[in-house]
Amino acid sequence: MSSRLHHFVAGPTGDWTITSQVAVVGADLPPTSAITPLPGGAPIPLDATWTLDGVTSNARYLTADEAAALRAVQEGLGRPAATRAALIPIRKTAAWWALAQDERRALVEERSHHISLGLRHLPAIARRLHHCRDLPGAQPFDFLTWFEYAPEHEAAFDELVAALRSSPEWAYVDREVDIRLRR
Amino acid sequence: MSSRLHHFVAGPTGDWTITSQVAVVGADLPPTSAITPLPGGAPIPLDATWTLDGVTSNARYLTADEAAALRAVQEGLGRPAATRAALIPIRKTAAWWALAQDERRALVEERSHHISLGLRHLPAIARRLHHCRDLPGAQPFDFLTWFEYAPEHEAAFDELVAALRSSPEWAYVDREVDIRLRR
Repeated sequence: MSSRLHHFVAGPTGDWTITSQVAVVGADLPPTSAITPLPGGAPIPLDATWTLDGVTSNARYLTADEAAALRAVQEGLGRPAATRAALIPIRKTAAWWALAQDERRALVEERSHHISLGLRHLPAIARRLHHCRDLPGAQPFDFLTWFEYAPEHEAAFDELVAALRSSPEWAYVDREVDIRLRR
Repeated sequence: MSSRLHHFVAGPTGDWTITSQVAVVGADLPPTSAITPLPGGAPIPLDATWTLDGVTSNARYLTADEAAALRAVQEGLGRPAATRAALIPIRKTAAWWALAQDERRALVEERSHHISLGLRHLPAIARRLHHCRDLPGAQPFDFLTWFEYAPEHEAAFDELVAALRSSPEWAYVDREVDIRLRR
C-alpha cells in the first residue's frame, strides 16, 4: 500500500465534526456529521456515509523558487492550535485536462495567482493536496484539499477560497463541495 | 473502474510473444513468454507470471505547440503493420520526484530533448504512456511505456532508446527493463 494514499471517511461520528457543508458547484455529497482522515489501507468503519480517497504526489506547477518560498514558511498538519479544518473536493472539466502543461501553468499562477495567494496565507493555513483523478476506480473528484487553521484565521481562509473561486482557473471547476470542520 | 486503467499481463501464453528481455538498470522482472495488454478491470489469467498496472493521464511536460506537433503526425496503437512492440517499465529516483516542475521540464526537453527525439520518430513509432506511481498499491515502477512499430523501424527504435538512455534525464532512472515483443 502506498504511504501517500489517504482516506477521508465521513459518518455519524469521527475526529472532526462538520460545522457546514456547501455545494459550491455541481452535486453535493450526502449529508453526514463528521470526518476522519485515515492512512491508506486502514479499515473503513462499517457505518461510513461516504469515503473519498486521494494520494499525495509531486507538485505539478511549482517552480523551484516558488517551492523554496513555500517550504520556508509553511507548517504541517496537526498543530494543537489548528482546531478548524476544511475538506474541499474539486473536479475539473475535460477541457482543463486537455490543456497543455504551459497552458495549465499560466492559468494556475500567471492568470489566477493560485500559488502566490496561497503563499500569502502561510503559515496560518496548513494544506495537504490529494490527487484522485488517476486512481484505478472511477472517482467523483479530481482533487481533495485538506486545510487546518486556528479559529482566528477562518476569515482569512474565507478570503482565500473566495479569491480562487473568482479566478480564471476556477472556470474549469465543475464540481466543488466546501466542508468546514471543528476538532 | 477508470477507462484509463490498463493491465500488462505476462505469462506462458498471450497476444504478444517476448523476443528479448533486458534489465537495463536495476532488478529484472521474472522471465516469462508472452504479454497481453488488457483493459482496466478485466479478469487477470490465473497463470499470470506478473501483472503491471498503469493509467493514461494528462501530459505533464508538453507545451501547447509541442502537443499540436505530436497530434499532427502521431498514429494510434493497433496498426496491422505494427507487428513489433516494446514494453519499457521505468522507475525514477526520489531526487527526480523532489524536483520542481520547471526543473523536471528543463531536464526532459531543454537538456535531454525527450519530446523532440520522440517527435522525430513519428509516425513510425506509436506510443502509449501509463503512470503507476500514484496508484494506491505499492508499485515496482513509476511508468510503463508501450510502443508499437513495423519490423523495419526496429533500428530507429533502438536509436531512440539509446539516445534517451544517454540523456541527463536518464541519470534519474534507477530501474528499467526493456522487453521486446512480436505479434
